[in-house]
Amino acid sequence: MNPILVDVLRGSTVESTHSGAFAIVDGDGALVASLGDIQRPIFPRSAIKVLQALPLVESGAADRLQLTDAELAIACASHNGEPEHVATALGMLKKAGLDAGALECGTQWPGRESVLRGMFSRQEQAGPLHNNCSGKHAGFVCVACQLALAGGSDPAEFTRGYIRAEHPLMREVGAALAATTDTDLAKAPVGTDGCSIPTYGIPLRQLALAFARVATGQGLAPERASAARRLRQAVARAPFMVGGTGRFDTDVMALLGERVFCKVGAEGVYCASLPEQGLGVALKIDDGNARGAEVAMAALIEAFVRLGDAERQAMTDFSAPVLKNWNGIEVGGLRAGAALLSLNGSTAQ
Amino acid sequence: MNPILVDVLRGSTVESTHSGAFAIVDGDGALVASLGDIQRPIFPRSAIKVLQALPLVESGAADRLQLTDAELAIACASHNGEPEHVATALGMLKKAGLDAGALECGTQWPGRESVLRGMFSRQEQAGPLHNNCSGKHAGFVCVACQLALAGGSDPAEFTRGYIRAEHPLMREVGAALAATTDTDLAKAPVGTDGCSIPTYGIPLRQLALAFARVATGQGLAPERASAARRLRQAVARAPFMVGGTGRFDTDVMALLGERVFCKVGAEGVYCASLPEQGLGVALKIDDGNARGAEVAMAALIEAFVRLGDAERQAMTDFSAPVLKNWNGIEVGGLRAGAALLSLNGSTAQ
Repeated sequence: MNPILVDVLRGSTVESTHSGAFAIVDGDGALVASLGDIQRPIFPRSAIKVLQALPLVESGAADRLQLTDAELAIACASHNGEPEHVATALGMLKKAGLDAGALECGTQWPGRESVLRGMFSRQEQAGPLHNNCSGKHAGFVCVACQLALAGGSDPAEFTRGYIRAEHPLMREVGAALAATTDTDLAKAPVGTDGCSIPTYGIPLRQLALAFARVATGQGLAPERASAARRLRQAVARAPFMVGGTGRFDTDVMALLGERVFCKVGAEGVYCASLPEQGLGVALKIDDGNARGAEVAMAALIEAFVRLGDAERQAMTDFSAPVLKNWNGIEVGGLRAGAALLSLNGSTAQ
Repeated sequence: MNPILVDVLRGSTVESTHSGAFAIVDGDGALVASLGDIQRPIFPRSAIKVLQALPLVESGAADRLQLTDAELAIACASHNGEPEHVATALGMLKKAGLDAGALECGTQWPGRESVLRGMFSRQEQAGPLHNNCSGKHAGFVCVACQLALAGGSDPAEFTRGYIRAEHPLMREVGAALAATTDTDLAKAPVGTDGCSIPTYGIPLRQLALAFARVATGQGLAPERASAARRLRQAVARAPFMVGGTGRFDTDVMALLGERVFCKVGAEGVYCASLPEQGLGVALKIDDGNARGAEVAMAALIEAFVRLGDAERQAMTDFSAPVLKNWNGIEVGGLRAGAALLSLNGSTAQ
């Protein structure tokens, strides 16, 4: 059993708990800190979108289509489906000469009341552009078009079926994931992700290694190291695109800029690169709950990243969020468990 | 650490797990089955609304106001805030000579997209009637008015502040909870619930005892046994009121009628009465996740309630729900863990 990483309190009583595991690895692959089982393969889900976006830069598609920071950022995003997200993903497809019909991620209604309210007031129907993965998929389509042009194929026709594991686009994406995590995906457990692409089971230790490489460029060819840096910087410059209103990744990266690249995944996964420390982080909450993953990630950022006083104060909104009830009364909160709080990141800095 | 009660699968791989504990007790208070720690106090939250509604019948308010089955059912409910729920809770308040202004549960926007869509299309603002607890609070107001009339007070004035632990209404509600669970609430951990009333920490074993008493009437004065039966039957006759469209409690009780009274609580709690077996059930998922609590409760119903073939087949939608992604592709599902599946309820029947 993994240790408790996060406590949920009501009054002064622990009401619920979230157990889990995490690994922190440096650019040489050395394990800097960990708790729990970091060798069992876990599905990283959307936490690895930056790794899946590497071919977007490496293939030359980003340069040829003159993709902006906002467009590169949304290629790494799980966004709220707000109007800016929908427009940005559509803009990428148009640059590639296609439209929303090329997306194979499926239709997702946004989950936020404020976004739904806006859509209903405009009598707007949800489509694949509202899917939280539409930017990643728009990036996939851009790479597929690049591959088509290189091979003399018709882009629209070549792109079709890009979500299948055996499509040339998805083989490129899988190769980037395999190389950065040092994992043989042919031997990994495989499932189908929410957006219909394959998701592979990879140990937290290997995921942390990949994010240490994204942080440092160590262990990557120069073109890949450069692509990783460009994607990290794009997200730091356009953090709204990676999530949206009220989202942990958007708010933390708006606060800390290039010093933290963090990305949530479904079912309680979080990955992060800490470039100043040269570290990669990967964690999973056993029960899949996002609230636990966010508090654990915030606690790890507090333990390992050098923060100013104001930044440290601001981070408590994420590492120790307050729970209020329907009358606005404070009824409890979340906090990192003892095992996480005892971590001291100073040895790693 | 409590055992794993529910596995979440993606493909054939366990992606996430939910650990927890449960107790099943008979009308004599004997423990029939359990897993995990059933002595630690847990906050039962909304799972005990039927116990909190006992004074509504016992006080004579239900008879004097000629409350219908739908009205008694919504007093035990955590509803979706659908138009029928809003109208029913308002109707109870009007019978008592008051209106929505008497409710102190706070405003809650419904969480379901279909309900929100309807509200937005009608340009309807959320208010306390939309709060999932508005029926319980309408019942509280009815009892408070009954107490006011008995004491010669002005109902509207007397009712004010009914959510406070020291208000005569809340003392009645607390007394019913203490007596049915054999718990000294003065020594119990206390927190504030989502709707601002106190919630007390009570062991699962004691909660299961209370629901066995609701199932059998054993250990209750005749008036209380009769009130419990009347509330159970009201919910069985008007199951939409206890939850609403697409809700576990509504659908399971519509399927099984009076043979199961079950009620969800926030943070992964479930309680149930199984009248045919004379049993009470109480469970909590450690991480507070409702999906885990639902699957565990469905598995316990399958293990302990006599089901026909069609009913058993229909219950698999709840005990082994399928997960589909945004393209409608089946990507996994939930299932009871080995510890739950090995239970054999036949010894208790």
